[in-house]
Amino acid sequence: MINTPYLLFLGDAPDPLAAKVAQGIKDWRPELGLGQYRMDGCKADLGLPDLSIAEAVAAGCKTLVIGVANRGGVISAEWKSVLIEALEAGLDIASGLHNLLRDEADLVAKAEKEGRALHDVRIPSVAYPIATGKPRSGKRCLAVGTDCSVGKMYTALAMEKEMRARNAKVTFRATGQTGILITGDGVPLDAVIADFMAGSVEYLTPDNDADHWDLIEGQGSLYHASYSGVTMALIHGGQPDALILCHEPTREHMRGLPDYQQPTLEELRDTALVLARVVNPGVQVVGISVNTQHLSDADATAYLAKVEAELGLPTVDPFRHGAARLVDALENC
Amino acid sequence: MINTPYLLFLGDAPDPLAAKVAQGIKDWRPELGLGQYRMDGCKADLGLPDLSIAEAVAAGCKTLVIGVANRGGVISAEWKSVLIEALEAGLDIASGLHNLLRDEADLVAKAEKEGRALHDVRIPSVAYPIATGKPRSGKRCLAVGTDCSVGKMYTALAMEKEMRARNAKVTFRATGQTGILITGDGVPLDAVIADFMAGSVEYLTPDNDADHWDLIEGQGSLYHASYSGVTMALIHGGQPDALILCHEPTREHMRGLPDYQQPTLEELRDTALVLARVVNPGVQVVGISVNTQHLSDADATAYLAKVEAELGLPTVDPFRHGAARLVDALENC
Repeated sequence: MINTPYLLFLGDAPDPLAAKVAQGIKDWRPELGLGQYRMDGCKADLGLPDLSIAEAVAAGCKTLVIGVANRGGVISAEWKSVLIEALEAGLDIASGLHNLLRDEADLVAKAEKEGRALHDVRIPSVAYPIATGKPRSGKRCLAVGTDCSVGKMYTALAMEKEMRARNAKVTFRATGQTGILITGDGVPLDAVIADFMAGSVEYLTPDNDADHWDLIEGQGSLYHASYSGVTMALIHGGQPDALILCHEPTREHMRGLPDYQQPTLEELRDTALVLARVVNPGVQVVGISVNTQHLSDADATAYLAKVEAELGLPTVDPFRHGAARLVDALENC
Repeated sequence: MINTPYLLFLGDAPDPLAAKVAQGIKDWRPELGLGQYRMDGCKADLGLPDLSIAEAVAAGCKTLVIGVANRGGVISAEWKSVLIEALEAGLDIASGLHNLLRDEADLVAKAEKEGRALHDVRIPSVAYPIATGKPRSGKRCLAVGTDCSVGKMYTALAMEKEMRARNAKVTFRATGQTGILITGDGVPLDAVIADFMAGSVEYLTPDNDADHWDLIEGQGSLYHASYSGVTMALIHGGQPDALILCHEPTREHMRGLPDYQQPTLEELRDTALVLARVVNPGVQVVGISVNTQHLSDADATAYLAKVEAELGLPTVDPFRHGAARLVDALENC
């Protein structure tokens, strides 16, 4: 667990997209981000107070979260001086970067001297068990996609927000670096050793109240040749009671795979159900989440209505129209 | 790559089954195992010459292979003295044990001093790439099972032996510790990081002659809640042209999962084909391999005939009846 609240480090972000981790924290856990730290040339702005390190500490921040991608995969000297200052001032540091904080000798030495923690959420910090396949109490929902990066995390977080507003018992369970930084906890599934993938998901979604929902962050796609094994482990480790199908209708090919096309939603539904029933015979597909960001309002509405008619399931873009209908479907599950 | 030929270390094996790795080498690569090393109390015997370390070196052995499971997961003092002697005499050591040779300080120091190699085949020694999903030249066959440990490795090795006898172009591609020790090369798939599983299988089965077959060792099962993600990565990384279904008909539940039943062969066929077609639309199920070791000859013959009639595919127990019919099916694929 990462200590909260956070100072969100935006560094020298070349554009707003580079700061998407920080944006995610601001969007989904606004109470955790007390301020932002921007360096010269930073082109991102979350609209939060710009705080110096000293101001952040005075405001109660416990952890500096690196909420931005680094250029060229290197932690620059400019960044380093800010991070050292943060450790000296009493902040922990959390990062989802590919290159690890723990591999930077100066940061490690300073953190040890100051008694501060360096959190590299890119890699696991737990020895996960082998999955047992045993049923657990409580309910679980998993978003599965026709492709990678179609909005599975967004869908689960939007549903969580709606369920919190309804005072439902709900926990978003992060399985990727961004989700872990947003919520302060989770399993970095893509970095788990093969034999322990499903076990790590069981560990992440333990027994709970009968009316509690875990909303498990999806990863990859059963139809993505590079990452399908990760998705498979999520389905069998998560034992979902409910599946949400996620889709982005304007994509010309599978992400990163120019020669591969997305499956249809019907194909995804049928394949995911067969596999999910292995561990939970009662699993249902309860709704469809479509990322319509590249469609006009009129086209989006028409597309959603068409899919809803074809598949007979509530079909929404939670960004455009909210997640209420997906949550309704979950409550009726 | 592990230097060959081998001295097969049986240690103090409490029974023949404990020495199954050594038995596998003797069965499938008899030219590689020049002798065995048995300690006091050893209850396994491969029928190979008992060689001292000095005799093994004189006979041309290059590597001592630990062909036996250790008791309690500890490399005992008795073992250690033999292993030290082997390093001093000029042998490398290869092991598939869970506890690693590289974690034994005395072995590491001795190996460094003598210039010898310690091979821990349990963990990867290569930084595998992310899978690209691009088609490769050559042909690939993958064995998929209704459960773990139903004979997938045995099936592939028996087919390889038959194809070698026919002078076909063929390579057994090991994906588990035993297979790697038998052949001296491969990918320890269950120890690969999730994101690189499919990529490691692509790496293992590269472009080849158009008439060359890779026989890929299967792992896990799509229907095994603990390990299905590994199987999924094998299917998408391997891009098989041909699938062999493997089954053990007397098992009362899935291995290690008392509450789970095996799927039917029809279910496995349909699910595996849907997933395999994602990366290779032309994939076919060409045959069925049944492990009938717990059936009488008459019952085995009757069971195989029944399955063959029901599924319309060549159905054999390669241990009892040879793999010729499976290879015939592959050649007609």
